[in-house]
Amino acid sequence: MVGNLATTTPDFSLEDLPGTSGRIDILCRCINSAFVLSHGIRRDVQIYLILRGGGAPKTVRLQGRDLRHLNPDERTTAALLKKALALEADFAWTKSTPGISVRAGDLADLPIRAEGRTYYLREDGSDHRGLPLAGDGTFVLGDHIGLSEEDEAFLAGLGAEIVSVGPKSLHADHCIVLLNNELDRREGPSHPAGGRERATKGDE
Amino acid sequence: MVGNLATTTPDFSLEDLPGTSGRIDILCRCINSAFVLSHGIRRDVQIYLILRGGGAPKTVRLQGRDLRHLNPDERTTAALLKKALALEADFAWTKSTPGISVRAGDLADLPIRAEGRTYYLREDGSDHRGLPLAGDGTFVLGDHIGLSEEDEAFLAGLGAEIVSVGPKSLHADHCIVLLNNELDRREGPSHPAGGRERATKGDE
Repeated sequence: MVGNLATTTPDFSLEDLPGTSGRIDILCRCINSAFVLSHGIRRDVQIYLILRGGGAPKTVRLQGRDLRHLNPDERTTAALLKKALALEADFAWTKSTPGISVRAGDLADLPIRAEGRTYYLREDGSDHRGLPLAGDGTFVLGDHIGLSEEDEAFLAGLGAEIVSVGPKSLHADHCIVLLNNELDRREGPSHPAGGRERATKGDE
Repeated sequence: MVGNLATTTPDFSLEDLPGTSGRIDILCRCINSAFVLSHGIRRDVQIYLILRGGGAPKTVRLQGRDLRHLNPDERTTAALLKKALALEADFAWTKSTPGISVRAGDLADLPIRAEGRTYYLREDGSDHRGLPLAGDGTFVLGDHIGLSEEDEAFLAGLGAEIVSVGPKSLHADHCIVLLNNELDRREGPSHPAGGRERATKGDE
């Protein structure tokens, strides 16, 4: 997830995220969409936030398998990012809180998968519902500004597929909700208690 | 959208929404999901928030056709709700800010549509993708606590259909994103510029 203006420093105000952080609030909503379930968090998701708003770009990585203290509200998520951005960042990952690390680096430094596993979300892409999405794929999204021509060239070089989530242009966090749901559906039913309809289907 | 503990008074802190407001933060995220598009807001959506956290229940109504000053972040949305809750609420609608009104009243006082147009979101419901959803229907969702037996009896009396959004239990705001997307798809394409794939299909 690319935050074109997202600050690389921790000196933003939790009282005015949109106005002081280069729209870290957008990244916080993406984190919520990527991880939060009704009863727990998605352990098999990772998100890389690319922050470009000041000096050398930084990358904050959140890994579902280790993540703790993630609440659904924006402010506490922003406080976790603030903590991560207070650390010295070089090109090795530095751990901030459980499941959250930071390093220097931009989109092109990410360990992005090869062809057939990388998807670039853009409103004019092919509908994701009709595509064979790799469950362990990488989905690249931009903030309100989108991706640069340079970013797009990088993704084209990887053979990334251009994918959309539906007929309307949506914010990145809403796109992530839709992608997670589509991948959930392909994995099959998993309601712990089963239910009316699923019970008749065996509720695996 | 039912907020079982959501405060009916404006004396909550914007610095700690989850801890002081009876989870008004959940309602704020639902408002974002219901209305926010990349370029504008959904003018054809209305949301009724039922707040039950203190004294007589209140209902806050947001109408997309008149709504202004809606930003995507939680805090500014919470500030709008705070303003609405500071007003005297009787059984007539009192306007707070453009598109936002408040009155006394609970779920059963809402102008909910009759059979075939009301849907109750519950994780064991029938998958919404396979159902003939009314685009002008009413979707009823609960917060982290869900709906009471009394609520469920009321909805059953209306002939509400029990609907789910997928195999995993999701927060209400994520459910709303999925419902909006499904309804968008049934209305057909509407990207202003069309796009790669749609162009070849005639962009119907």
